[in-house]
Amino acid sequence: MTFKIKKIFQKARLGEISLPSGTVQTPAFMNVATQAAIKGGLSAADLETAGCQIALCNTYHLHLRPGEDLVRDAGGLRGFMRWNRPILTDSGGFQIFSLANLRKITEDGVAFSSHIDGRKIFMSPEDSIRIQYALGTDIAMAFDECIGLPAPDAYIKASCERTVRWLRRCNDELLRLDGGSERTVLFGISQGGANAALRRGMMREIAELDLPGHAIGGLAVGESAQEMYDTIEAVEEEMPVGKPRYLMGVGTPENIVEAVKRGVDMFDCVLPARNGRHGKFYTSCGTLNIKNEKYARDFSPVDGNCGCPVCRNYSRAYIRHLFKAEEMLALRFAVIHNLTFFNNLMSRIRSSIDDGSFAEFKVFEALA
Amino acid sequence: MTFKIKKIFQKARLGEISLPSGTVQTPAFMNVATQAAIKGGLSAADLETAGCQIALCNTYHLHLRPGEDLVRDAGGLRGFMRWNRPILTDSGGFQIFSLANLRKITEDGVAFSSHIDGRKIFMSPEDSIRIQYALGTDIAMAFDECIGLPAPDAYIKASCERTVRWLRRCNDELLRLDGGSERTVLFGISQGGANAALRRGMMREIAELDLPGHAIGGLAVGESAQEMYDTIEAVEEEMPVGKPRYLMGVGTPENIVEAVKRGVDMFDCVLPARNGRHGKFYTSCGTLNIKNEKYARDFSPVDGNCGCPVCRNYSRAYIRHLFKAEEMLALRFAVIHNLTFFNNLMSRIRSSIDDGSFAEFKVFEALA
Repeated sequence: MTFKIKKIFQKARLGEISLPSGTVQTPAFMNVATQAAIKGGLSAADLETAGCQIALCNTYHLHLRPGEDLVRDAGGLRGFMRWNRPILTDSGGFQIFSLANLRKITEDGVAFSSHIDGRKIFMSPEDSIRIQYALGTDIAMAFDECIGLPAPDAYIKASCERTVRWLRRCNDELLRLDGGSERTVLFGISQGGANAALRRGMMREIAELDLPGHAIGGLAVGESAQEMYDTIEAVEEEMPVGKPRYLMGVGTPENIVEAVKRGVDMFDCVLPARNGRHGKFYTSCGTLNIKNEKYARDFSPVDGNCGCPVCRNYSRAYIRHLFKAEEMLALRFAVIHNLTFFNNLMSRIRSSIDDGSFAEFKVFEALA
Repeated sequence: MTFKIKKIFQKARLGEISLPSGTVQTPAFMNVATQAAIKGGLSAADLETAGCQIALCNTYHLHLRPGEDLVRDAGGLRGFMRWNRPILTDSGGFQIFSLANLRKITEDGVAFSSHIDGRKIFMSPEDSIRIQYALGTDIAMAFDECIGLPAPDAYIKASCERTVRWLRRCNDELLRLDGGSERTVLFGISQGGANAALRRGMMREIAELDLPGHAIGGLAVGESAQEMYDTIEAVEEEMPVGKPRYLMGVGTPENIVEAVKRGVDMFDCVLPARNGRHGKFYTSCGTLNIKNEKYARDFSPVDGNCGCPVCRNYSRAYIRHLFKAEEMLALRFAVIHNLTFFNNLMSRIRSSIDDGSFAEFKVFEALA
């Protein structure tokens, strides 16, 4: 993996990540394909149409079902889901702490029960890396504890220290599996809640490992936008400049723009699908809820400035009808459109860094 | 509308229906788009991929939601759902008798309550035709009573007589709306339960109206396959040879082949979608249930002889995973594949009538 910074505007960076399976122009939004499938009935081909550069799949879910050995035998995630572009997998840590039951953390790893069938599972940092490697990911994420907040500083500190020890074990395990070939690379994750000193200290330690990239985890968990931005600023000071930075689970278009301003290169979020499910569409003029009565006889496209297949072909009136009639096609249209919006947003951010206009960047370009 | 019979093999007919919006090669399977959308999250573009020649939409559903005036203002069903090929609408009769509540039949029409919100609605034969005309259909179906069986012969006879009177009113109303332009044409429907004499008598009366096509209704409602075939044979004797014959709501591939043998040209059925929802896929070697454990590690396509985008790209193992993980994409794949199978089945039937091999026709061509 190589990361080339092509231009810098204040702290914002225009870059390119080269991976064995393709390149990713940054800042980039990763489209979420949790179970090797995209919510709303989208296929990998639909993701390409939506302009997705890199998909994110979830280790926890895929380990539980269908299992990494099956995916490996199918040719990895790319062969299994027929996606020919880069893939990043999370480590499973976040889901273990948000979905699984009966968790017990030890130095060795985490014991938990599957949220599907209650099956007892143990996952160590080495297990997480082995699973991600079997899935055939380009970018593996470090196995970390995502701390439930609020928590005492002493607990956060001890957890961060353990996560750094786990990171070393992840790195060793990947080296053992990969033999330094870099088919898969490892990103470290900064945790530390909203404690700036802890965040900085942990990030300094992680940076010493000279990993190919770094992430900021444990945000977008209910804190205010200002707390999120302050934390990014604190961690960023300790993040090596020449490596990509990934803000996990973020966020709204506004969050993304503010984070890019603070030096972040990569994002992922379920918002485009989750909002789409409720009929919320992102447009160049702001958001709209298609279920609103006022769109019942609106025969214009959702966004006349959008080139996605939904806006090129279908009217607001038709899409509203699909939502009211509870047709699955409603969700598919919403997700295709919203993912296109997020991918276009990143493309517009990149252009504005490139031409030096990023300071005046507007999320909703066509707003009066 | 014109109907050209190109070849006859015993009673089976190879034909072509020409409509203002396109031609339909017969025998043809109509793909069901009840609410101006296809179950499983398929768009009209997906229907084209599946080889669909003509879509069937439901008057009852579209009258309730979003209403025919809105659809008319959107450019009719073709403009609303962006489908550029022919459309047939049913009359609403079948759904009034299978879905709606508190039905009351009079000579004038049927009063009922919407199954969605209980709203009281009255539909006369004229109303049904006005709605279908506003929807912009190519082929409108006569407003009929679909009798719940078993019923006394006296009731069936009285109902059939009323349905014939309703048919005359449908025909008059369409002539009034259409002025003989034939933008929309009307098909009459033979009812009469399993009573062959009643069926023949009613069909004789309908034939006198010289309508452009005829349907056999009231079958596929629980009777045995043999009863269905016997009824088709009885009605067929009275059906004008030079006009298309549509067997409503039928059926399995075997039913379709047997009905083509008895002189039927058009079919529609929800089976491809309904079976797909349960993981049942039609293949050239028979049917399979993709949820079966034995497909967990089967990396071959559902049907190696199928050219649909699902079989060209995805493995049984992946599709089984999608079903197990309850991803919407599972249903979409199942419906695309099964509709392709049914449309291909009709294409193979047409070829075998053309080359004189229809007597040896096998639904599952690749079966040992």
